[in-house]
Amino acid sequence: MTTPFPIALVQMSMTDDPSRNLRHGLELIEQAAKQGARMICLPELFKTHYFCQQEDPACFDWAESIPGPTTQALSAAAARLKAVLITSVFERRGPGLYHNTAVVFDVDGTMCGTYRKMHIPDDPCYYEKYYFTPGDLGFKAIDTSLGRIGVLVCWDQWFPEAARLMALQGALALFYPTAIGWHPHEKSLLGERQREAWRLVQRGHAVANGIYVAAVNRTGHEKPSPDGVGLEFWGSSFIADPQGVLLADAPIDREEILLGLVDPAHLENIRRCWPFFRDRRIDAYEGLHARYLGDRR
Amino acid sequence: MTTPFPIALVQMSMTDDPSRNLRHGLELIEQAAKQGARMICLPELFKTHYFCQQEDPACFDWAESIPGPTTQALSAAAARLKAVLITSVFERRGPGLYHNTAVVFDVDGTMCGTYRKMHIPDDPCYYEKYYFTPGDLGFKAIDTSLGRIGVLVCWDQWFPEAARLMALQGALALFYPTAIGWHPHEKSLLGERQREAWRLVQRGHAVANGIYVAAVNRTGHEKPSPDGVGLEFWGSSFIADPQGVLLADAPIDREEILLGLVDPAHLENIRRCWPFFRDRRIDAYEGLHARYLGDRR
Repeated sequence: MTTPFPIALVQMSMTDDPSRNLRHGLELIEQAAKQGARMICLPELFKTHYFCQQEDPACFDWAESIPGPTTQALSAAAARLKAVLITSVFERRGPGLYHNTAVVFDVDGTMCGTYRKMHIPDDPCYYEKYYFTPGDLGFKAIDTSLGRIGVLVCWDQWFPEAARLMALQGALALFYPTAIGWHPHEKSLLGERQREAWRLVQRGHAVANGIYVAAVNRTGHEKPSPDGVGLEFWGSSFIADPQGVLLADAPIDREEILLGLVDPAHLENIRRCWPFFRDRRIDAYEGLHARYLGDRR
Repeated sequence: MTTPFPIALVQMSMTDDPSRNLRHGLELIEQAAKQGARMICLPELFKTHYFCQQEDPACFDWAESIPGPTTQALSAAAARLKAVLITSVFERRGPGLYHNTAVVFDVDGTMCGTYRKMHIPDDPCYYEKYYFTPGDLGFKAIDTSLGRIGVLVCWDQWFPEAARLMALQGALALFYPTAIGWHPHEKSLLGERQREAWRLVQRGHAVANGIYVAAVNRTGHEKPSPDGVGLEFWGSSFIADPQGVLLADAPIDREEILLGLVDPAHLENIRRCWPFFRDRRIDAYEGLHARYLGDRR
């Protein structure tokens, strides 16, 4: 069985200066490593403001190839710190073809896996369908020298199918680099239930799959939207154990490094007590491939 | 769009006298109807003690055919109260062939649907694989004159696939008749996290599917286990809205009638804000039919 390994989530805030954000992210990674983390995860698209608040073709200039300058800097950091790094890059795959991509570096700096965000949102101020082609790499767990993990990105966190597919491949933990926040005008009335629903659904994945779940969000109020109102990112990053128990959780409104331990023995013990994988009715799940069944009766 | 309808969950405790339990269940249903409920759900196997704490062939005597005396009494109650009743019956389908079956009666007393529990647990004191043949009716939503619902039973509540399949068929609410409790020796150390995980995973289904979830458990300490230690059923029945918000929840240790409203307009509004059904990657979910994928790489 895999040895337990300490993980860290870097909840951070971003400026409009990508090189500052990269430098700041690297500093926080280094702090996390100094605190003992061996696997460290950054928020979604940490190098830039959350530019998807508007549809602006100039923003494609932020995209870069993989490998590219950003992944090279991250790779070097992984090797220097001897830590697994889970990062998020606005990928320029070709002219007019861009993805929202997670890149994982092993402890020697090698790129050990990439995941292109599969479920792409599109809501007011989250205009991601404009920027990101839906991923075509599928839901593939990633092997690191510390253990097998599932990396998913933000909107994926609402889809039980994604979590299940990673767990079925033997992932020990799910990581969700995230950028989610409030519309300021909704915050007082709806904010708390939105934040709570976001945590509920992910902690539910932890329970249903007997798997660790680590979600890392950005924090801070960013205003690149055309009306200048922007989004208040709600932080609240957390690490949940395979029973959904919160091992660590971050505040809403400031940066924080969250630490936790992924313990395969604890995971196996929980799954022995609640053996859901034994009892799945794989003979009766065919409808899951349908778009909708409510109109077929 | 369907009209909103008030629902009730009957959290009750059982004695070792089935005819008393049936009578008591009918009384509570009547109280719920008097309080305005139009759709009322009883706990799993409400007519008996939770006999699955032991493997005893004599317990098969509790089973009965559908239709049978119990369903006839429930049908009459539904017609008399002009309410939809969601009930749970130990079904004798044939000699040596038994199911854990939910039966739904429409407001005129007609049996409008049955569901045979698909996921069957088997853990210490929950020896259900001995008693119940896994369901062969699949995950089929049930049409009532008040609206389409999904009825699932207890152990099903841990499986996101079951919830999703019901939601895909257009169910407005999921009902989970339940019998879950603590092993007394585990309660102080693990009890709260077990109960919380149970609620988390179901509220997670509500969020992931934008659907109402209503889970109704039994309450009370029942001791038919051979060692006489028994199970302390943890009550805690609840109704959650399509964002996972608790509309009503019951205490651990006493009977209670929980009331809530299923409002299709609220459900549709939530799904417009969080349009998960728009974005499911049905082209990439094939692995969900596998028993396991961790050994195929």
